[in-house]
Parts: sequence; C-alpha cells; structure tokens
Amino acid sequence: MTLQTLSESRAHGGIQRVCSHVSAATGTEMTFSVFLPPAAQNALSLPAVIYLSGLTCTHANVTEKGEFRAACAELGLIFIAPDTSPRGEAVPDDPAAAYDFGLGAGFYVDATMAPYATNYRMWSYVADELPQLLAASLPLDLARMGIMGHSMGGHGALTLGLTYPERFRSISAFAPIVAPSQVPWGQKALSGYLGEDRTAWRAHDAVALVESGARSGEILIDQGSADAFLAEQLRPELFKAACDQAGQPLTLRMQAGYDHSYYFISTFMADHLAWHARRLAT
Amino acid sequence: MTLQTLSESRAHGGIQRVCSHVSAATGTEMTFSVFLPPAAQNALSLPAVIYLSGLTCTHANVTEKGEFRAACAELGLIFIAPDTSPRGEAVPDDPAAAYDFGLGAGFYVDATMAPYATNYRMWSYVADELPQLLAASLPLDLARMGIMGHSMGGHGALTLGLTYPERFRSISAFAPIVAPSQVPWGQKALSGYLGEDRTAWRAHDAVALVESGARSGEILIDQGSADAFLAEQLRPELFKAACDQAGQPLTLRMQAGYDHSYYFISTFMADHLAWHARRLAT
Repeated sequence: MTLQTLSESRAHGGIQRVCSHVSAATGTEMTFSVFLPPAAQNALSLPAVIYLSGLTCTHANVTEKGEFRAACAELGLIFIAPDTSPRGEAVPDDPAAAYDFGLGAGFYVDATMAPYATNYRMWSYVADELPQLLAASLPLDLARMGIMGHSMGGHGALTLGLTYPERFRSISAFAPIVAPSQVPWGQKALSGYLGEDRTAWRAHDAVALVESGARSGEILIDQGSADAFLAEQLRPELFKAACDQAGQPLTLRMQAGYDHSYYFISTFMADHLAWHARRLAT
Repeated sequence: MTLQTLSESRAHGGIQRVCSHVSAATGTEMTFSVFLPPAAQNALSLPAVIYLSGLTCTHANVTEKGEFRAACAELGLIFIAPDTSPRGEAVPDDPAAAYDFGLGAGFYVDATMAPYATNYRMWSYVADELPQLLAASLPLDLARMGIMGHSMGGHGALTLGLTYPERFRSISAFAPIVAPSQVPWGQKALSGYLGEDRTAWRAHDAVALVESGARSGEILIDQGSADAFLAEQLRPELFKAACDQAGQPLTLRMQAGYDHSYYFISTFMADHLAWHARRLAT
C-alpha cells in the first residue's frame, strides 16, 4: 500500500494533494485527493470528512469545484475525496459504456455479480482501506470521521454512515439518491452489481436501512428545487418519511432554485463542513 | 450583438451565467461568464470586476475553480470572465499550435500583423465591447469597474487598467506577466501580433507603460514564491522597480510556497475582490 503523491499545491494556507496507490480492495490503482488544513502542521490528530462524488466524477470534480478549502482551513478539517469506481483497462465497464453503471459509477457497494465482483469494491475501499491508509501517514483521527456526498455519493454517505455510526460520526448529503431500490439509477446499479435478489439491496438503500433499524445522529441534506433529477431519481421525501416514521433525526432543506451542479454544492459546502466540524469537535 | 444564454445556475444566492454573442471586435462568436450577486435582483447599478484568464484558459477555468462567488455575493460585485482569444475554425492559430500563441493566447492586444489582425482584437473586446454589451442588459455601473487577471490575464489587467484609469478604477493581478517585452512568452506574442518594431510593444508592457507615465490608483499583486514561471516569465521585481521609480503605488505580496495554479488564485481571490469592492464602493 505505498502511497504516491501525484501533485501537491499550497492552498488556503494548507496543502492540497492528489495521491494514488494500489488498492487491496479493488485490485487497481486508485487515485484520491486529500486537503490538509494549516492545523495539520502541528496537530497530532485532526477530524476528517470523506466526500463521495456522484456519477461520472473522479476525485477531481470536487477538488476543483467544491470550494471546501477555505472552510476546512478555518475549521481544521481534513477533506478526503476518493474516486467513484475502480479504473483501468482490465476493469469491466458497462457493456453499453453508459454513464450510470461501471466506470465512474461504482455506487459504493461491494459487487457480488460477475464480472464486477473482482474490482467493484468501493464499499470496503471507503469504509476500511482508505481511512486506514491515510491514518498511517497523516494526523487523521479515525475516531473523528464524518462522511458526505453528492447524488450517488450522497447515497454512499447515507448507507455507509447509517451502517457504521461509530466509524462515521456525522453524515450529510447534497441531492442524494436515498432509495436506489425504487429509482432507475439505483435499480440498474444494484441489479448489475448485486443481482436480482432484492433482499441484498436493502443494505445499500438508505430508506430500507432506516426502516430496518439503522440509526445515526442527526443527518443533514440539502436538495435543490430546480434539480432535474429530483422527481425521478432522488425523491428525498421517501427518506423524510422513513426518518419521521423511525424517529431518525433529519434536517432536509429544500433550496429554492438550485440545480444538481457544483454551483449548488459549492454554495452550501461551507455550511455542511461547519456542521460536521461541530459534531467531530471532541 | 444578441446575447445568448448558454447556461444559468443559482449559486451563492446569485446567478452564474455563461453567455455567447457574435463580437463586432473579433468577428467571431465569443463566450464569457458573468456572475450576478443577489443584490442584482434589486439594485439599479452595481460595481463589476472583469477577470482576465491566463494562457490556454477559457471563461470556464475561473468560473469553475476561482472561488469568487461567495465573496461577490457578499460584496455585491458582478464578476465577468471573458475568453482569452477569438475561437473558431476560421480563426488563424499558431502555425505550430503552441499553447502560448494563437488560440487561448490572445495576450489582450489588437493584433496588427496578418493573419491575426482580423480576429485577435481582445484589447478592444475587453475595453469597449464587452462592458458596453453587458451594461445594456445588466445592472452594471460602467463608472465602477475594476480589472484583474492571472498570468497573461494579469498582463492584460495591468495594461488595460494603466491605459484607461478612468474606465478601470481598480487593478489587481495574480502572478502577472509584467514585462512581456523582456520575457519569452511576451516576446513571442508581441512580435507575432504586433510585429518586430518594439516601439509598438510599449503600449502592451506594464513596465514600459509606467515608465512612460501611465498611472493608476494603488495596484495589488500576489505572487507565489513556488511559481515555476516566476524567474523566467513573470519577474515582478521589474514592475516593482518601475513603480518605485515612478511613484506608482503598488502592493506586491510574495506568497510563500504558492504555485501558479488555481489553488493559489482561489486562496487570495476573496481578498482581491474585497480590495476592488472598497475602491468601487462609490
């Protein structure tokens, strides 16, 4: 698990790095970015947030467009942005090379279906391998980690966070897919990676997880009202209903006029980071 | 001069637009971005800053990576980002398609040399056409405009600002080319666009302009100490010496460890915008 630094730039008083390593989970070379706030120069351990990106993205989208560095620098938060799938010529893609399955669309599961099961293990990569790898070389406190994400990455943040509340102590999401079992993007991905037995899908569906008793601290979700995917793919009202029913604390904010883009994400990024930092302070 | 809106997204409470129009100056279709802060919904006229990008860039680089929207929203500043050259199949490029001449490298001059003279008229485009075009449809106060830029765009901001101090009331730059007549990037561009007679270059060289008596209010420059282009292409010490000699007020800040990238620009963007806003307040 040798970590290679691909680039390093000073930014907002800290360091923005892009790194790669051969992943034991995926069997591929994985690239991610990590921002170290100025406090990392002296602190022995800092809280960290993992940000999971949406369909088609790599680490680069949020790293370039996310506007997270000023807030992380001020709050003393490490910001970690992994890729959204394994990559490489040996990695099987969607047969039709669609944008919503295969490369760039790992959906944060450990696939069980051939030919995807070998490499598509983003669940283990995000939950286990990446935090352990980073904690070995950075002042990262594994007991103070939060998780957040956008769209497909919001799905990953909710499912990973609800499954491991002791590992991810705070959860937030921008325009997440909350009920993949009930929407086209999710149905395609879960059937392709996990097969047609829908009982296996429940562990990767935030609504089903909450219905089955999974709990976290208060969850924060921002959703743009002008998001083109709102009605068909995102359906936050399903998560709201499940949380209300189960007594899972949720703050769901509909943001008037905002779409699905990084213009939306970057607008509310600092607010989400402050929210995580408060919950990860001690 | 019909203005076409290519995209529009809500961001930081305002509106980020990308627009195109057929330019009288360049004879081509030009694309630019403009951010309208929330105050634009009610204000009759707002101050504006034109941001000129560096080599290889389009409007998109700063629009995505510049981290200017939060500050512009708070300060009530309109932010305008034009392209760096004319584009299109009919526009002559560098014969070798190099990154530092031709497409993406207009150097903010009105070319006089064939075959560039027809389209490469970024000086007139930025100084005249674009502000007039925008003022016709937006609450933009032409009497309260500032100009800023990065690298080649810093060169453009300095030369346009020093030439038209009544039009551009505040000037700032990130890692600007300050003496194109004395560095490889500038010598290639100015000889290609303006010819070998170096007297014609002086109007497009910030050091020469200050030596010839051009003046502005205080100019702000940030320069990273780890910038790979610092010693050969940028040479801010030449501008410092010219300003000191001439009594032109200049704040030149060397920023330790910062490189030439948008990680550097975005770090100091809010600071530059506040600096412009103070000078454009009335």
